[in-house]
Amino acid sequence: MVESELKMAALQPQRTIDELKELRALTGDDDGAQRVAFTETWVKARAWLREKVKGLPIDIETDEAGNTWFTLRGESEKAMLIGGHIDSVPNGGWLDGCLNVVAGLEVMRRIASEGTPPITVRLVDWADEEGARFGRSLFGSSAFSGTMNPDELRNLVDKNGIRLVDAIGEFDIDLDQARNATRQQKDAAAYLELHIEQGPVLESMGLPLGVVLGTFGVERHAIRFTGQSAHAGSTPMHQRRDALGAAAKLSIEIREIAKRNGGVCTVGSVVTKPGIVTAVVGQCDITLDQRHLNADSLAKMLQEAKDASERFAAEENVSVEWNRIWQIRPLPFNPELIEMADEAIRETSGTAHRLPSGPLHDAAEVVRADIPTIMLFVQSLRGLSHAKEEDTLEEHLLMSVEALDRLATKTMAWIQAQN
Amino acid sequence: MVESELKMAALQPQRTIDELKELRALTGDDDGAQRVAFTETWVKARAWLREKVKGLPIDIETDEAGNTWFTLRGESEKAMLIGGHIDSVPNGGWLDGCLNVVAGLEVMRRIASEGTPPITVRLVDWADEEGARFGRSLFGSSAFSGTMNPDELRNLVDKNGIRLVDAIGEFDIDLDQARNATRQQKDAAAYLELHIEQGPVLESMGLPLGVVLGTFGVERHAIRFTGQSAHAGSTPMHQRRDALGAAAKLSIEIREIAKRNGGVCTVGSVVTKPGIVTAVVGQCDITLDQRHLNADSLAKMLQEAKDASERFAAEENVSVEWNRIWQIRPLPFNPELIEMADEAIRETSGTAHRLPSGPLHDAAEVVRADIPTIMLFVQSLRGLSHAKEEDTLEEHLLMSVEALDRLATKTMAWIQAQN
Repeated sequence: MVESELKMAALQPQRTIDELKELRALTGDDDGAQRVAFTETWVKARAWLREKVKGLPIDIETDEAGNTWFTLRGESEKAMLIGGHIDSVPNGGWLDGCLNVVAGLEVMRRIASEGTPPITVRLVDWADEEGARFGRSLFGSSAFSGTMNPDELRNLVDKNGIRLVDAIGEFDIDLDQARNATRQQKDAAAYLELHIEQGPVLESMGLPLGVVLGTFGVERHAIRFTGQSAHAGSTPMHQRRDALGAAAKLSIEIREIAKRNGGVCTVGSVVTKPGIVTAVVGQCDITLDQRHLNADSLAKMLQEAKDASERFAAEENVSVEWNRIWQIRPLPFNPELIEMADEAIRETSGTAHRLPSGPLHDAAEVVRADIPTIMLFVQSLRGLSHAKEEDTLEEHLLMSVEALDRLATKTMAWIQAQN
Repeated sequence: MVESELKMAALQPQRTIDELKELRALTGDDDGAQRVAFTETWVKARAWLREKVKGLPIDIETDEAGNTWFTLRGESEKAMLIGGHIDSVPNGGWLDGCLNVVAGLEVMRRIASEGTPPITVRLVDWADEEGARFGRSLFGSSAFSGTMNPDELRNLVDKNGIRLVDAIGEFDIDLDQARNATRQQKDAAAYLELHIEQGPVLESMGLPLGVVLGTFGVERHAIRFTGQSAHAGSTPMHQRRDALGAAAKLSIEIREIAKRNGGVCTVGSVVTKPGIVTAVVGQCDITLDQRHLNADSLAKMLQEAKDASERFAAEENVSVEWNRIWQIRPLPFNPELIEMADEAIRETSGTAHRLPSGPLHDAAEVVRADIPTIMLFVQSLRGLSHAKEEDTLEEHLLMSVEALDRLATKTMAWIQAQN
C-alpha cells in the first residue's frame, strides 16, 4: 500500500491545529472569536484564508452571494465539494465553522500534492452561516440552494438599525443577484462537511467521531394559554382558571412525547401575565421547539403536543392557541455517503457512531439542492459551543482531519465510478 | 320592639349608595376611582367626608400618621371603632375601602340620632391602605398598631422618584412621629370593618354576606432552579438538566399541597433564562405565595413545598434555592365578635357563611394591636376588584349597611357588659 502511505505522509493534520490557532490570534480577543459575517474582522479572516492557498494550483472565485470557492481542477468537471464557514458568532469559539474550512484546505493540499486529480475538488467558505448580525442564518448556502427569498431578508436590520440589504452592499453583494449562486451547483457530485458536534453525545459515549445522518426537521410554535388572572389570596383553588397550570403540564408532557418518539422537544421560554407574586396567572405564553430526523415522527410529535395542550386546557378551564413560528423538514444525508463516512471513521479511530444533527448547518441547504451530502462530527467538550469555552481535544482534532481526508478519497472514487 | 323599629327607621342604607355614587362622580374618571393616597384627589375625597359629618356631634382629629378619627363621645370612654379607607388604587373600583367608611358614617348617624350613646363610637379613615404610590400598604393602620418601622419606609420612592418621606411631608406627616398614632389605641374595645369580598366565594354560594374569620398568614418566597442551558437540537432528552422541568413540577404540586391543607398556594411569576426558543432552560425563577388561616397549617404547606422542590430538583439534576420575600402570621378575629357578626348577618339576610380573608386589610393591623376585631364581607360580582369593573348588587349593599348596623348595636352592648 505504498500509494496510501504516500497520501498519509502528505496530509499534515497538526498543521490544521496550528492554522486554527493562528486564525484565533488574528481574529479573536479575550472574549472569543469575532469573525461575524459582514464585518471587517470577517474580511481579515477571509484574506488570511486566501493567503494560505497561494502557491497551490487553485482558482479563487467569489459568487453572487459572497461564498468563496477554491477550485482545484481535475480531469473531470464532476466536482467534490468540501464546505465550511469562517464566520463566527460574536464571542464565539475557535472551532465552529473554521475547523471545517481549514481541515478542508489541508485535504486539498494533500490532493494537490498528488498532481491533477481525476475529478475536480472545490472548497467553499459559505457567507454568513451564523446569521449573527441580522438573525438569519445560512445566507450564502441558501442562495446556493436557491431557497433564499430576498424579500424576506431585505429589511432585516442589525442592532444599529442598519438594513441587511445595505450592509451586504458594502461587501459588493446585491441581494437580488444572490440567488445566481445556484450556478455553482453545476457538476457538484457530493458535498462533505466536518463540524464539531456542539452537543454532548459523542463525549458521553467516549467517542472522538460520529457520522451525521442528516439534520432534524423542526417545528417551532408559540403557544398561549388564557385563563383568568385572580387574587392569590381571595380565590379558592377550585375556582381558579390557572393558565400556568396548563402550561406547566404541557412543559412536562412534551418531554415524554420526545422520549416516546425518539426526537427532542423543548419549552425554552415561559412568560406569565400579570406575572406578579400575588396573582393567579391569567395568561401564559410558552415556546415549543420539536425536532426529529423522520418527517412522520415529527408530525406525530406535533399532533401529540397539540392534543395534550387541548386536554390540559380543558382540565384547567382555560383556552389554548397555537401559532407556528417556523418549520423545516428533516434533511437526511446520502445513504451511500453515510456508509463511506462510517468506514472512514472506523479506519481512523476504530468505532463510529451515527447521530442526527440537532443544529442546522450549511449542509442542510446543500441537501435541498439535491446534492449527495454528508457530515462528520468531532466530539465537543461539555457540548459547549457559541462561547469561548468551546473546545475539542487536540488528538480528536487530528483524527477528524484524517477521517475527512479518508472520506474525501472514498468519495472521489465513488464519483469517478459514477462516470 | 318599638326601640328597635325606631333604630331601623333612622338608618338609611340607600343614603350610603347615593353617597358612594356622589364620591365616585367627585373623585373618579372614565378609568375608575383615582383616590390614591397622598394625592390631591385623595385630599378632595377626605374634605368631602368631613363635610358629611357637619351638624353631627362629632369631633374630628387627624393623628400623626394621617388617619382621620371621627369621634362621637359616649357616656363611657370605652370605644367601638368602625374603620375603612377612602384611598383607592389608580383606576380602582367604586366600593373598595370607601364602602366601609361611608357605611360606618351611616351607622354613626343612626347612633347619634338616638342621643349620647352609652359608649364612645369612633369612625377611622385609615391613611394609605392600598400603598398604591409607594408599594407599601397599611401605612396608617400599621402606625396605629405600632408595627411600622419608619426606616423601612423612608427611602421608598414613587414612579417619579419622589421619596415617601418627602411626599407625606407635603401632607404634614412626619414619618418619625407617625407611630405616635398608637395613642389612638387608648380605650378601644372593639373594631368593626365592612368590606367587599374581592373574591368569588360568596357569589359562587349565592350569599350576600359573610363573616370573616381573620386574615390569612402569608409565606412569600422566590425560588430559583439552576440547571444547564443547552442547545434544543443537539442535547438528547436524557442528558438535559432542565430547570423548567423542576419548576413546572413544583407549580403543579403546590396546588395539591394547598388543597390537601385547606389553604391557597400560587405560583404567579415564572422567568426562564436564557428564555429563547432554541435553548433548554438553564435557570428558572418562580414566585410562591402561600396563605392559610392556621399558623401550623401554613408552616406545613411551606415545608411540603420545600420538600417537593428538593425532590423535583434531584429528579431533574438541578439545584434549588429559596429566598423569603415576605411573611406575616395569620391574624384571627375575635371569637365572640365572629358569633355576633354571624347573628347580625342571619338577622339581615337569613344565611351566614364564614370565610377567611385572603387579602390583607387594616383590620389585620388592629388585631396586631390586640383589639378585638371583626370584618363583614359583602359579595363581589365576578370577584373583581382593583378595577373599574368592581361591583356589588345594590340590594346586597343595602343589606351590608344593615348588617353592619346590627353588628354595631350588638358590639356596643357587649362592650357595655364588660364594664
